[in-house]
Amino acid sequence: MPSSKPSLHTCLSPSLLSLYDVSNSAVVIIDVLRASSTIATALFNGAKCVIPVDSVAKCIELGKKIDSITAGERDGKIAEGLKYGNSPFEYPRSFIEGKTLVLTTTNGTKLMQLALEKGADHIVTGSFPNLSSLCNHLMKQKKNVLLGCAAWKDRINMEDLLFAGAVIRQIKENYSINCDSSQIAETIYNEAQGDLFDFIKTKKASHYQRLLQYGLERDIRYCLTIDEADVLPFYEDGKLSIHPGS
Amino acid sequence: MPSSKPSLHTCLSPSLLSLYDVSNSAVVIIDVLRASSTIATALFNGAKCVIPVDSVAKCIELGKKIDSITAGERDGKIAEGLKYGNSPFEYPRSFIEGKTLVLTTTNGTKLMQLALEKGADHIVTGSFPNLSSLCNHLMKQKKNVLLGCAAWKDRINMEDLLFAGAVIRQIKENYSINCDSSQIAETIYNEAQGDLFDFIKTKKASHYQRLLQYGLERDIRYCLTIDEADVLPFYEDGKLSIHPGS
Repeated sequence: MPSSKPSLHTCLSPSLLSLYDVSNSAVVIIDVLRASSTIATALFNGAKCVIPVDSVAKCIELGKKIDSITAGERDGKIAEGLKYGNSPFEYPRSFIEGKTLVLTTTNGTKLMQLALEKGADHIVTGSFPNLSSLCNHLMKQKKNVLLGCAAWKDRINMEDLLFAGAVIRQIKENYSINCDSSQIAETIYNEAQGDLFDFIKTKKASHYQRLLQYGLERDIRYCLTIDEADVLPFYEDGKLSIHPGS
Repeated sequence: MPSSKPSLHTCLSPSLLSLYDVSNSAVVIIDVLRASSTIATALFNGAKCVIPVDSVAKCIELGKKIDSITAGERDGKIAEGLKYGNSPFEYPRSFIEGKTLVLTTTNGTKLMQLALEKGADHIVTGSFPNLSSLCNHLMKQKKNVLLGCAAWKDRINMEDLLFAGAVIRQIKENYSINCDSSQIAETIYNEAQGDLFDFIKTKKASHYQRLLQYGLERDIRYCLTIDEADVLPFYEDGKLSIHPGS
């Protein structure tokens, strides 16, 4: 059946991105633990912008050129040569307001770079703390949507899938969805939504366990909280800043 | 926590296969609609062996060299130059007993070829019609397991994920599972198990819809029926035949 609705697809790993049409879609970068949650939080708390870079080296280099906060972790520790980490709690208004954050993360910033290389020209970021702003933006655009999960070193992860499911549940009536990954995501979200933290704990989600080992339960709980930093990070000219319409 | 149990992983698309250790695992090729269901059925009905090949050209070539049935479909029709299709109903005992079936399919046979290229040396096939034989075999082996979903042209599909979930549900106590894809698969299967056909219909699974257009509802229902052709296809020397221990 032909449909006049725009399409919606979910890409569960950067390794699958080549299967999807990124250039004619609003591409949502999802890295729930923690890149996209931290980006929303920094902007919500008044950061001028967030510059995502896909390596520690680029982060250091850019930090030398512009007045900025350089941040990034590898294996749960602040990466050598950088000043701050990936936790949303590092970016309260008292610290980040008016500043530029240059951020590198293991998965989210890499997926964004990959989407750009593949021709994406409409990129936003999504996380539970900015779920409503994201959904409102997508529905206003009336264009195809690609929900891109950052995953963990290309392995599919539970929390990014869950977030894709949360978005689909909110906006699905407006889209034509012929995508099993999207159906899987929504089904899992429907089961999990009563208590997201308990769900990923019970399912022993791998990145949940990794962060827990680093003592980051508070981060995880925050990153699973809906609309705590409800702005829309929109990518333009190499920077993420709050979309004027959000 | 160290674990003495072997590991179990689920790979949801051939595009992700490079992330997993195929050479130290029992690799299960899953192509529910319909390659792995048809393979189990042909062997259950007495086929001497099934030779999986990854292209129509190879299928034709081999058919000229050995006394065999050549089979394969593309876009729902028997491929040009081949004699039979991918439906399990084409291989009743009265037809297939004692014969060699050379089979090419869009996804399943390709995944098997890829696994071989990556060094897999223990390959079996899995489908709902041979679920119990597969689970019994895996548990006897006491080695790592990789559940490999054939997907559809690399896109993750619902029915292969469901079958992975069915296996996990049966054998999980014997394995150490640190794999979100496996958790996702089991969660979905638990929700679907009451009526698998109704589930994939409700979720508008993409390949279900494709086959339905070709008038293949009967095939789909059969391919979702547990233990109807309960043998274990085991790959050795280029052929799938019934594992002696099954």
